[in-house]
Amino acid sequence: MKKSLEKPNIINVEVVACSQLFTIEAVDLTFSNGVRRIYERMKPCDHEAVMIVPILGYNLILIQEYAVGLDSYQLTFPKGRIDFGENAFEAADRELKEEVGFGAARIEVLGKLTMAPSYFSHRMTIVVAEGLYERKLQGDEPEPLIIYRWPLDNLLELLNKPDFREARNVSALFMVREWLVSQGRLNY
Amino acid sequence: MKKSLEKPNIINVEVVACSQLFTIEAVDLTFSNGVRRIYERMKPCDHEAVMIVPILGYNLILIQEYAVGLDSYQLTFPKGRIDFGENAFEAADRELKEEVGFGAARIEVLGKLTMAPSYFSHRMTIVVAEGLYERKLQGDEPEPLIIYRWPLDNLLELLNKPDFREARNVSALFMVREWLVSQGRLNY
Repeated sequence: MKKSLEKPNIINVEVVACSQLFTIEAVDLTFSNGVRRIYERMKPCDHEAVMIVPILGYNLILIQEYAVGLDSYQLTFPKGRIDFGENAFEAADRELKEEVGFGAARIEVLGKLTMAPSYFSHRMTIVVAEGLYERKLQGDEPEPLIIYRWPLDNLLELLNKPDFREARNVSALFMVREWLVSQGRLNY
Repeated sequence: MKKSLEKPNIINVEVVACSQLFTIEAVDLTFSNGVRRIYERMKPCDHEAVMIVPILGYNLILIQEYAVGLDSYQLTFPKGRIDFGENAFEAADRELKEEVGFGAARIEVLGKLTMAPSYFSHRMTIVVAEGLYERKLQGDEPEPLIIYRWPLDNLLELLNKPDFREARNVSALFMVREWLVSQGRLNY
């Protein structure tokens, strides 16, 4: 059962398909036991992303936005790409202003998440934002996002909503709950 | 702030790139306020997936497998596609036999997760598997997967491991913890 974790040897990486947004690579590699495979993956990207869990009074703030992958509106915490020259805190503050219309006086990192690493290099930093004050920045949203408040004392009930099932959002909800409990601000 | 959730009108869907594994569509649509956009997404797929959280005695079982998206070994609960003609329970039992070498006498659904629905239609059912017995099925793994046990009484410490950060795995860990607590088998 035991073996050392000797990484496969990558022999060749080739772009096999490309659109405006996606670049797909075929990676030709040999495992340490000699087995050769070609795997497809999304070309690794330097840009990381950030998701913000905003707390305003005794509520979390979420947005409802159209998601074309499922062709439906979904509940999500605000999120976005960390632009060149930004750190996660600056990106979080900017995205919050663009998507929700709030700046944040206090931002703290809850953790980092990846997503289906057999195909993607996606990395997202999850932060909690407090000390909110009204400040709107113009984003690139095609329509005004609908702001949604969810009470802290009923946190996990959010999991019963069929439009709140996205894995990074679900993780973030549990992470902020642990954080609030650890501070004595919430009981299980 | 309030507006009705009138879905955008999809005018055209066109395949713009295609590889062995991925088909990318450009979706031309008009939002209810008249704004027109073209969004790219992965072509929606009928196949759903399943992730299995196996419990054996006082341990969770995970596997370490190579993930080419991050070019590194990652800790993950066993998972896989639900094949044609299978339901989530049958797929879970098969994947567990292929990846871990166990069948399961009891499988229960913990929840459903999506993943980045702005781009993907991915849907994954999370199940917990108990009553495990040794039974190996041949899978398509290029090398034997390394089996990893993690004690139930130390559940959330798993989040401190840098190779356990995948959002569906993190969600599944929290979900099985809630399930165990709700049955009186674990305390927070």
